[in-house]
Amino acid sequence: MISKIAEEVLIKGTAYENLRNLTKKVGARLTASPGYYKAEAWGQQALQEAGADKVYLQECTVPHWVRGGKDEARYYAGKDTKGQSLDVLALGNSQGTGPKGISAPVILVNSFEELENRKDEVKGKIVFYNYKFNPRFVLTFQSYSDAVRYRGQGAARASRYGAVAVLVRSMTHATDNNPHTGGMNYNDSFPKIPALAVGIQDADKLATSITSSKTVKLFLKSNAKMLADTIAHNVIGELTGTEFPEQVITVGGHLDSWDPAEGAHDDGAGCVHSIEVLRALKAIGYRPKRTIRVVLFANEENGLKGGTKYAEEAKSKNEQHIFALESDAGGFTPRSFGFTMSKERIEKVRTWLPLFAPYLVWQFNDGGGGADIGPLNRTFGTPVAGLQPDSQRYFDIHHARSDVFEAVNKRELELGALNMAALIYLVDKYGL
Amino acid sequence: MISKIAEEVLIKGTAYENLRNLTKKVGARLTASPGYYKAEAWGQQALQEAGADKVYLQECTVPHWVRGGKDEARYYAGKDTKGQSLDVLALGNSQGTGPKGISAPVILVNSFEELENRKDEVKGKIVFYNYKFNPRFVLTFQSYSDAVRYRGQGAARASRYGAVAVLVRSMTHATDNNPHTGGMNYNDSFPKIPALAVGIQDADKLATSITSSKTVKLFLKSNAKMLADTIAHNVIGELTGTEFPEQVITVGGHLDSWDPAEGAHDDGAGCVHSIEVLRALKAIGYRPKRTIRVVLFANEENGLKGGTKYAEEAKSKNEQHIFALESDAGGFTPRSFGFTMSKERIEKVRTWLPLFAPYLVWQFNDGGGGADIGPLNRTFGTPVAGLQPDSQRYFDIHHARSDVFEAVNKRELELGALNMAALIYLVDKYGL
Repeated sequence: MISKIAEEVLIKGTAYENLRNLTKKVGARLTASPGYYKAEAWGQQALQEAGADKVYLQECTVPHWVRGGKDEARYYAGKDTKGQSLDVLALGNSQGTGPKGISAPVILVNSFEELENRKDEVKGKIVFYNYKFNPRFVLTFQSYSDAVRYRGQGAARASRYGAVAVLVRSMTHATDNNPHTGGMNYNDSFPKIPALAVGIQDADKLATSITSSKTVKLFLKSNAKMLADTIAHNVIGELTGTEFPEQVITVGGHLDSWDPAEGAHDDGAGCVHSIEVLRALKAIGYRPKRTIRVVLFANEENGLKGGTKYAEEAKSKNEQHIFALESDAGGFTPRSFGFTMSKERIEKVRTWLPLFAPYLVWQFNDGGGGADIGPLNRTFGTPVAGLQPDSQRYFDIHHARSDVFEAVNKRELELGALNMAALIYLVDKYGL
Repeated sequence: MISKIAEEVLIKGTAYENLRNLTKKVGARLTASPGYYKAEAWGQQALQEAGADKVYLQECTVPHWVRGGKDEARYYAGKDTKGQSLDVLALGNSQGTGPKGISAPVILVNSFEELENRKDEVKGKIVFYNYKFNPRFVLTFQSYSDAVRYRGQGAARASRYGAVAVLVRSMTHATDNNPHTGGMNYNDSFPKIPALAVGIQDADKLATSITSSKTVKLFLKSNAKMLADTIAHNVIGELTGTEFPEQVITVGGHLDSWDPAEGAHDDGAGCVHSIEVLRALKAIGYRPKRTIRVVLFANEENGLKGGTKYAEEAKSKNEQHIFALESDAGGFTPRSFGFTMSKERIEKVRTWLPLFAPYLVWQFNDGGGGADIGPLNRTFGTPVAGLQPDSQRYFDIHHARSDVFEAVNKRELELGALNMAALIYLVDKYGL
């Protein structure tokens, strides 16, 4: 059966062409942007074409953040009056500077520890977090977990000490200069100061300048703002179970993406992976015992309202969720799945591992899932899993302009879908 | 010790910058071309900078094939007199058409079986081998082994039946139209007819045209020719063993590359991997018991004279070769090593596998090595191994214009070097 799935995906797969359509015809699709609503229409059509028995939308209230125009930054070292421009992107959910921008002296800190030690110097300044993406971690998600707090909490922590804005070094192993945006959070007790990401070449340039000249001023301009909440939708397609239709197996990725690129790996790949699971099972004539539900989640990037709503509605309808699988780590060659569930279940699942080895999934790890299916796991204790592709290139393009269709390899993408379909098939067939 | 190696390679690694120099300052380096001799100089310098105790050249006699100018192809379907051009590349070691080119009717065959069945139709025609790269194989090297006979033997087998030239569909999963060149062989009993590779989009176009119009003529022009044999060198650098200097551990890749590109993955990656093994061991202060010898082999692509010479000289000097490792499958994230050696030795080596798991090598496979170290294995029975990186993208760029530095990811490249250094360290320390 799994070799049938493999042949179907590798020979007649549609994931790559689906991704081309999503990235090239829809493109960027930040929650509540026009692109997002186009993506909802794309998702419905793609699920219908894949052969879903039922396609529908699930409404949810979402934040509506807009970039509002081009972000700008320049620094002035010593007596330089012309300034050197920096490639920057306002962080998601951040407040803009207003149309005139902000000029202030800059203070470089390499860590929160340094911020605390120098908190008396921060007032009236722009804090530049120059914390570097750690190359020691072999798995790049560890480098990301390690560094992302500067993006998430940097503004709030600097604002506490009177900073007027923050600039955050991008979280990437890439050698290019693209800034990497991403979500951030304010602390309501302190002013909501502007927060921007800067490309790593420019971060190094700025750091060098600060070392050699004691007086470096920074000019930042961002037009970002948070508008009133609005409505968006999870896009859902199902193969209805033949024996236990009330038992739901969820497989999904998130439909929204950051605005500067096409969201090809993050998370167009997860969307087309999930659609391909449904398509391939249907195409080979498999009739699932349980209901297999593909969910393209809204608003993972800056609010998680889609995943939250999905779990809430499941609870209010008293649905039975036996398993959920997410793909939100890119369309690279798969290496493993990570599972968050009881030890007994993991042991059962591990007996299936040899079936995956020929398709390049060689490990089933403890721990894993996905942001969007987290609420389901927390609400019901539903066993969850996440696809774990090779992670070396993910943070090269993550949340940056370079996350485009051309960065995705057809075969690597297909191998992800193939392994996901195999796992969903086994869970449907043998339970958990 | 291995984590020390890992830190060294991931934090202070020079493989990526070495590869940038090789690909961007030297570039294409087909055996006996000016680029090849520049690459010899590059290799010596890189090995010196890496800290080799001794750097030297090993002379060998090599074939001298030249492309001689731009290859051309057009087809004329039915009454079309203008013709449609095709993107082609003469195959390595092939004879050209002469300055006027060759025009002849084309016959499409999908396999050698079809060629045999239709052998009476072949005389005076150009045979177009349209055998497709098989997507069913998960490991792309299997697709390559399956398809490469059409490139290697296609001309000889068609010439036997009176064909005047052959055109061969490129061996690739890429979706682009770049033709993929590569070595081919004639059979001395039959005329040496021209042989060219065609990009897959153009192959499909031509096939469609042949299906819809019974009279399709093909014009081919290639200026390729084989000149007299000449001299080139293997470039060698050593760390001399402190306890058993007479025991040699070889680690290498091949320095030559096809002419249309930069040979970044094939096999610039293998060269800089091998140099990095030496550099990292030296940098962390490891003094090997045995002699670790990095060899950048000449002429792997169209003659294997470098590898052959290396084994011959080892034999004539009565050297003791205890192990050889090659990297010639690209600079992608490593997944495994493949070993050709006794069962007992493989079992011993397998006890080391847990040491590699954190660095993403999760399997030690039976069978493997490399073309250049094959002669060593056949001469002495030396245990050999090959690095096995993720293979999904390799044949997208293999022998095509797209095999450039930009197709290599820094981290993926470094992880290959790191695992190779770990293996060489263990073999040196504990023997085989």
